[in-house]
Amino acid sequence: MLFSLRKTPAGSEAQPLLDLADRLGYRARFLGAGRRVLELVREDGTPGDAADRSRFEDFALVAGVLDASDAPERTERRADRKATVVRVGDAVFSDDTVSLIAGPCAVEDQDDLIEIAAGVREAGATLLRGGAFKPRTSPHAFRGLGEAGLEMLVRAREATGLAFVTEVLDPRDVELVAGAADALQIGSRSMSNQVLLREAASSGKPILLKRGLAATVREFLLAAETVLDAGNPNVILCERGVRSFDSVTRNLLDLGAVAHLTTATHLPVIADPSHAAGKSHLVPPLARAALAAGAAGLIVEVHPAPHTVHSDGAQAISIETFAELAAAARAIAPLVGRRFIDGTDSRPLRVTEPDLAPRAIERTAP
Amino acid sequence: MLFSLRKTPAGSEAQPLLDLADRLGYRARFLGAGRRVLELVREDGTPGDAADRSRFEDFALVAGVLDASDAPERTERRADRKATVVRVGDAVFSDDTVSLIAGPCAVEDQDDLIEIAAGVREAGATLLRGGAFKPRTSPHAFRGLGEAGLEMLVRAREATGLAFVTEVLDPRDVELVAGAADALQIGSRSMSNQVLLREAASSGKPILLKRGLAATVREFLLAAETVLDAGNPNVILCERGVRSFDSVTRNLLDLGAVAHLTTATHLPVIADPSHAAGKSHLVPPLARAALAAGAAGLIVEVHPAPHTVHSDGAQAISIETFAELAAAARAIAPLVGRRFIDGTDSRPLRVTEPDLAPRAIERTAP
Amino acid sequence: MLFSLRKTPAGSEAQPLLDLADRLGYRARFLGAGRRVLELVREDGTPGDAADRSRFEDFALVAGVLDASDAPERTERRADRKATVVRVGDAVFSDDTVSLIAGPCAVEDQDDLIEIAAGVREAGATLLRGGAFKPRTSPHAFRGLGEAGLEMLVRAREATGLAFVTEVLDPRDVELVAGAADALQIGSRSMSNQVLLREAASSGKPILLKRGLAATVREFLLAAETVLDAGNPNVILCERGVRSFDSVTRNLLDLGAVAHLTTATHLPVIADPSHAAGKSHLVPPLARAALAAGAAGLIVEVHPAPHTVHSDGAQAISIETFAELAAAARAIAPLVGRRFIDGTDSRPLRVTEPDLAPRAIERTAP
Amino acid sequence: MLFSLRKTPAGSEAQPLLDLADRLGYRARFLGAGRRVLELVREDGTPGDAADRSRFEDFALVAGVLDASDAPERTERRADRKATVVRVGDAVFSDDTVSLIAGPCAVEDQDDLIEIAAGVREAGATLLRGGAFKPRTSPHAFRGLGEAGLEMLVRAREATGLAFVTEVLDPRDVELVAGAADALQIGSRSMSNQVLLREAASSGKPILLKRGLAATVREFLLAAETVLDAGNPNVILCERGVRSFDSVTRNLLDLGAVAHLTTATHLPVIADPSHAAGKSHLVPPLARAALAAGAAGLIVEVHPAPHTVHSDGAQAISIETFAELAAAARAIAPLVGRRFIDGTDSRPLRVTEPDLAPRAIERTAP
Repeated sequence: MLFSLRKTPAGSEAQPLLDLADRLGYRARFLGAGRRVLELVREDGTPGDAADRSRFEDFALVAGVLDASDAPERTERRADRKATVVRVGDAVFSDDTVSLIAGPCAVEDQDDLIEIAAGVREAGATLLRGGAFKPRTSPHAFRGLGEAGLEMLVRAREATGLAFVTEVLDPRDVELVAGAADALQIGSRSMSNQVLLREAASSGKPILLKRGLAATVREFLLAAETVLDAGNPNVILCERGVRSFDSVTRNLLDLGAVAHLTTATHLPVIADPSHAAGKSHLVPPLARAALAAGAAGLIVEVHPAPHTVHSDGAQAISIETFAELAAAARAIAPLVGRRFIDGTDSRPLRVTEPDLAPRAIERTAP
Repeated sequence: MLFSLRKTPAGSEAQPLLDLADRLGYRARFLGAGRRVLELVREDGTPGDAADRSRFEDFALVAGVLDASDAPERTERRADRKATVVRVGDAVFSDDTVSLIAGPCAVEDQDDLIEIAAGVREAGATLLRGGAFKPRTSPHAFRGLGEAGLEMLVRAREATGLAFVTEVLDPRDVELVAGAADALQIGSRSMSNQVLLREAASSGKPILLKRGLAATVREFLLAAETVLDAGNPNVILCERGVRSFDSVTRNLLDLGAVAHLTTATHLPVIADPSHAAGKSHLVPPLARAALAAGAAGLIVEVHPAPHTVHSDGAQAISIETFAELAAAARAIAPLVGRRFIDGTDSRPLRVTEPDLAPRAIERTAP
Repeated sequence: MLFSLRKTPAGSEAQPLLDLADRLGYRARFLGAGRRVLELVREDGTPGDAADRSRFEDFALVAGVLDASDAPERTERRADRKATVVRVGDAVFSDDTVSLIAGPCAVEDQDDLIEIAAGVREAGATLLRGGAFKPRTSPHAFRGLGEAGLEMLVRAREATGLAFVTEVLDPRDVELVAGAADALQIGSRSMSNQVLLREAASSGKPILLKRGLAATVREFLLAAETVLDAGNPNVILCERGVRSFDSVTRNLLDLGAVAHLTTATHLPVIADPSHAAGKSHLVPPLARAALAAGAAGLIVEVHPAPHTVHSDGAQAISIETFAELAAAARAIAPLVGRRFIDGTDSRPLRVTEPDLAPRAIERTAP
Repeated sequence: MLFSLRKTPAGSEAQPLLDLADRLGYRARFLGAGRRVLELVREDGTPGDAADRSRFEDFALVAGVLDASDAPERTERRADRKATVVRVGDAVFSDDTVSLIAGPCAVEDQDDLIEIAAGVREAGATLLRGGAFKPRTSPHAFRGLGEAGLEMLVRAREATGLAFVTEVLDPRDVELVAGAADALQIGSRSMSNQVLLREAASSGKPILLKRGLAATVREFLLAAETVLDAGNPNVILCERGVRSFDSVTRNLLDLGAVAHLTTATHLPVIADPSHAAGKSHLVPPLARAALAAGAAGLIVEVHPAPHTVHSDGAQAISIETFAELAAAARAIAPLVGRRFIDGTDSRPLRVTEPDLAPRAIERTAP
């Protein structure tokens, strides 16, 4: 490992760092005339350790990492290991597939939800999205239907065969949500919430992890590292736009980050064009762009009557538009060496009348 | 209330919004030739309601609020109400005082902590800071001593008479932390965590709320609104720098936001020059600048041997430098119409030998 | 026109604005209880004027424009006018074509330049790029070969039949550069340089206008408006990435802005994946993404031996990679309703030996 | 000099760099197991050269500079040289003084201008500001009175004894503006305009250089380096706020950059609270904050009737408010070890009736 230092270490300033190196079995050398670079090599010739690296980075004296290729983190793509494949229902997220997730922003009505689920499945989606617990900025805004929303999602799965992913906000709700959902979404506002990340990871369900509003790519990967470190290998990264100074879109979709991540990590990376666009007419071009940049899939907000809903209606597209978007995905996937996982290939869709009896959601024990 | 619309409403697009207005007792009028502005006035002549406002803002059709002065939110400064005064130990946070909070980033050692607490109190601080539960980006980084750290803070309070504020990260820890601390800090990463905000609010302890890394001022105020809405009026806002494209400082301290907030809200606003600077030599100038901009106080990281500690050592200042900073605060406060609340005015400091027996922290029932 | 005001106008604060409205023939009305919205309508029923709009926006009292659809600016897409088609050599930039521009960052060597020009033309490019006058941040950095570089570009055009676009930095160089080049590039650093924009516009040559590093989309369009206002209708907009807090890419390519612009303006919009990526392996995915988002073309840095060159070598791709990228462009163009303008369709390429005699560049009289 | 490399150099990738090092007399060594750090030391033991450094940084292989303390740039503060003192009229900009610059945004009226000049001088300002050539975003906006505005500034100087600084936008106007003004302002939009920087530098007049809207501190210093490199040592740096995602202020005043620059460069650094605030009531707190952070002065927009003027009226403060601000400057200066240069200490102000005959401005020959 090679670290750059903030300054030439004076007096005993480097001593605590050198003591730690000694305890952990590393040989330390300062490089350069100004001793501004520190090299640490394991004395026994074994590679370094990512956890050790974090402890060294934590010192005030250390400005940054110059080279840590001998102490790779769990999220790093390496020649000697396969890319991660995450399966949720019929969806497959990997480095050679494209899967589409679609559904309403918030779950508000059972009939609408089933109509949407059936519609997007027929168009090619393999996973349903829908919010039961909604993160909001204002305490006065609609926060979702909670457990009742989860029940609606369960019924929609029964009616259409489409597995679903939904957000969890509170570590105390993880058991409940994991008892119902096929995958857990960690939203943008929660990306840095290590408490929630660990709790969600321990449910064993696949984690759809959204990038924070102003998170660097490194911070995004460290959030995923937290899930992997907690023993859950099934992480799907999701780029959803970062905060910008401009307002023609709600957020700025960072497709350079998507392209970079496909080479830097073994985890699948998808994109959320809806939250990036903030306007429905910009969703299809951004969706196509994300796939052309190499995304492993999309998560898209779909609603048949967007102006009637509480939250984020401005960015929802119709089922018809989603079908066109799925057609574009079928065409673009082979251009980037990917196979489109098509919801229409699954067993025939036969929407059953939902049984409206309450659903007992069995809480998962972590 | 006056709202701008995303477009001229076509067909029945505005109907759900008009229906809601009707149900809530508002008369609606479209203004302008293009019907791009919507006016809502209570039919009975009473003022609007901030919660109603949020529900209208939530519609896809609504682009933004043009004027909501008749439906003020709880955080808004109004002619008819006094500014909020938050007292924690000897510290007073208000619109005509300056109080200093100081202490180590993380609590790591009992003796160091008491030395720092005694030192900053003698220099003029009225509140101790110190992290027992540390939010970190890497899962491999030091996460604080937890309950043992809380005990150290309790002992430091016993030894020096200085009340303390410490961060809480997990809603399940609120009872524990509130049982020990005099005020709860909600960190930058947690500002948008409404679950934690509500739980912390319900403890009844004053809340020190840090601005999120890329939160707009409006989002910051809505986080405070969440605490007020949960029945806890004692919120201290804290500007700590926002993410920027430049790296000479760790974050960009937004003193325009501090100046704006002192006129826009009745809540006290302090600043954290340490996390903004990221480098100890930039802390004193930013601290002075924050006070000159009208901040109601500062929260500063102080450590006698910064290069030995785990986290954020690069930005900690010495006790001597803190004493100079407190002297500057004494001089600047009167220039901006504020009174310096001086830790040296309290009962004489007599540091007692800490009793190292375990402290039973009584969990507060919310 | 509908303007939002910063506050309810007190006393005679609105008088200068009302006087101007009167002089220009507009009837003014304040809307809403708080008089926070101002409506201006031409008394004679004719539409408003974009220049008038700017004069009203300029008042301190005016916070922003709510609706100016009756006073469209020259860059705005309107139902009653065709999209602009800009032709440079064999390249066509319009709303239903895709054209590729390629070449070295800076022109440094005649043989290299001709090799690149021939290579990219054979791969499908229809326009050559290459810097003779280079904008640099450091005064010590290589600033291009100047007039000698222009001569090399002229010879490359003679040898390959490929027209070229090159940057102009100094208004005093416009005649010289316009005397040699087929189109003038206004670089990112110069987007707000109205002096240069007007001078370049007056040359009559098509203008390739790059978005400023932190320019809003509105500011970008106003820079184009400056060129149109100076009587030159041939503007190609170019998104090249904006400044971000993250460093995995050099800039953050704003494809939401590209998608928005294709509906908001009649001018063609292309993208520069090279300056956005900053790393050669990220150029092809960003190039594909830009086309999938609806860009009318790309401008790409190509060099056979990138590590030998002075500037921006890290982001240059090889001729082979460019050929693959052109193949992707051929495949993506029809998916977004565009026709690929193929350099290989032109008259056969027969690279002639360059005549190295000095080229007398005839300065264009504006 | 120590450089970090983008990757372990493969094959002959480093050869061009090593060849250059050889030609320039440097001995090169790769450090670390991965050869990711390059050390260059002059063979004859002399220090490196900043121009050489730029040439090495320019290679694609080089990721950044780790240590260049042996090849300092011209703007760097060094132990062996005094801080730069720039004098313009009665104003002194240095590392132990505070001087105030004030005046209208744009020069629009002779009488107003003289009233403002006399007012701010009586309040303590030592330099007048006022725009004759205004950089604007819209081609339809008011662009200043040009030469007539310069004449008004000359008459205001005659009437009040106050020297003036004014912006130059076009390299072809430098002679004209330098023939009239006591110092030249390079505005934010022009910071990266090396052509204009060199031309303005060659006039020999002091240069007031504003930071670009999204310029890093390093880019800001390299713009100053360009002026120094052109032989003009008299540069005043001016922080004026950077672009942000929030809108409560027009720009985000970066006082961490001011604090950093006071230790990193020998050039004086002032602040512009007016363009940062964008709202007059936020100007005084930001002005005080800038001085408390260690700024060597302020440039402030002052107008007696802000709502009547064309541009930037919303941020102009009255002469009375400016007088209060000057009083605060007198109080804060000694707290940060600076001496207030007081316009009221100069020869008595006797406003003479302006002679309205045209002024022949003698163009300076560079």
